[in-house]
Amino acid sequence: MRTNKPELYTCLSPSLLDLYEVNNSIVVIIDVLRATSTIATALYNGAKSIIPVDSVAECIRIGKQIESITAGERDGQIAEGLEYGNSPFEYSREFINGKTLVLTTTNGTRLLQMALDNNAKAIITGSFPNLSAVCNFLITQKQNVILGCAAWKNRVNIEDTLFAGAVISRIGKHFSINCDSSAMATSMYFEAKDDLFEFMKLKNASHYNRLTTFGLEKDIRYCLTEDIANITVFYKDGKLLAK
Amino acid sequence: MRTNKPELYTCLSPSLLDLYEVNNSIVVIIDVLRATSTIATALYNGAKSIIPVDSVAECIRIGKQIESITAGERDGQIAEGLEYGNSPFEYSREFINGKTLVLTTTNGTRLLQMALDNNAKAIITGSFPNLSAVCNFLITQKQNVILGCAAWKNRVNIEDTLFAGAVISRIGKHFSINCDSSAMATSMYFEAKDDLFEFMKLKNASHYNRLTTFGLEKDIRYCLTEDIANITVFYKDGKLLAK
Repeated sequence: MRTNKPELYTCLSPSLLDLYEVNNSIVVIIDVLRATSTIATALYNGAKSIIPVDSVAECIRIGKQIESITAGERDGQIAEGLEYGNSPFEYSREFINGKTLVLTTTNGTRLLQMALDNNAKAIITGSFPNLSAVCNFLITQKQNVILGCAAWKNRVNIEDTLFAGAVISRIGKHFSINCDSSAMATSMYFEAKDDLFEFMKLKNASHYNRLTTFGLEKDIRYCLTEDIANITVFYKDGKLLAK
Repeated sequence: MRTNKPELYTCLSPSLLDLYEVNNSIVVIIDVLRATSTIATALYNGAKSIIPVDSVAECIRIGKQIESITAGERDGQIAEGLEYGNSPFEYSREFINGKTLVLTTTNGTRLLQMALDNNAKAIITGSFPNLSAVCNFLITQKQNVILGCAAWKNRVNIEDTLFAGAVISRIGKHFSINCDSSAMATSMYFEAKDDLFEFMKLKNASHYNRLTTFGLEKDIRYCLTEDIANITVFYKDGKLLAK
């Protein structure tokens, strides 16, 4: 059945992004554990902007050039030369309000760069903490959408897929969806939605295991909580900004 | 927890194959609708061997060189210059017994070639019609396994993922599995298993729609039926052979 609705696709890994018409779509960057959750939180708590960078060296370099907080982790520790980590709990209003955060992440930043290189119509970030804001924005735009899972070193992961499913379960009817990945994401979300944390644990999710090894169960719970930092996050001219 | 069990991964698209250690694994080529289902059927019904090729031209060329049946479809029709199509129903014992089939498929053959190029330890094909044979073979080998979904032009599809889930649901306990794609596949299979056909229909699976447009509902039902052509299919020296 043909409709005039815009199209929606779920891209389960950055390695699959070239299968989709990026230049004709809004791309939602999804990196649930923890980049896009922390980004939403810092902006919700008043950060002036967030500059996403893909390496520790670049993070340090920008930190020297402008008044800012530099942050990023490698292997569960604050990276050498940086000041803060990737946990959303580090970015309270008292701390981050009015400041610029330079944040290095690997998976999310790489996908964002790919969306930029492919001339995405617009780029926003998505996470459970700002789920409703993402959904509301996408409905109002009436544009094609790619839900872009940042994955883990290009391997498909459960949590980013669950977020795609959460978005589709809420706003799918506004789109024409002919995409098995979207159907799979939605199906899994319906199975998981009553307790996302327990689902991650039960399914032995690789990132769940990685983070709990570092004692970050609290972070995971936060990153799976809907609408606790409910703002729209746009990418513009090298910065992530709240609407 | 470390174990001595071999590892099992699910690769949801050929575009993701380079993330896995192919040269250290048995690769199962999964192209449920319809290539690997038809391959199992033709060999089960006595075909001497099947030569998989990636183009119509190559199929015609080999057909002229050796005594064989040439087969393949493009856009739901028997391709020009070939004699038969991709439907398992074309390969009854009366017809195919003792013959060599040269079969051109796109997604499955490409993945098979990638597995070869990356020096897979062994290559077998998997489909619901030979599900138990695949499972039994994998258990006995005690090697690492990659369940390789052929997908559709690299886009993840439901049916190949369901087959991966079916395998894992049966033999997962024999392997160490630290792979979110495997967890997702298994989860979806458990949701679908009571009626795979209805699940495909309900989820508006892209390939379900593509094939029913061509009136191939009967093919889909066949290709989702377990163990009706239950043989192990190996790739060796350019040919697919029954054990």
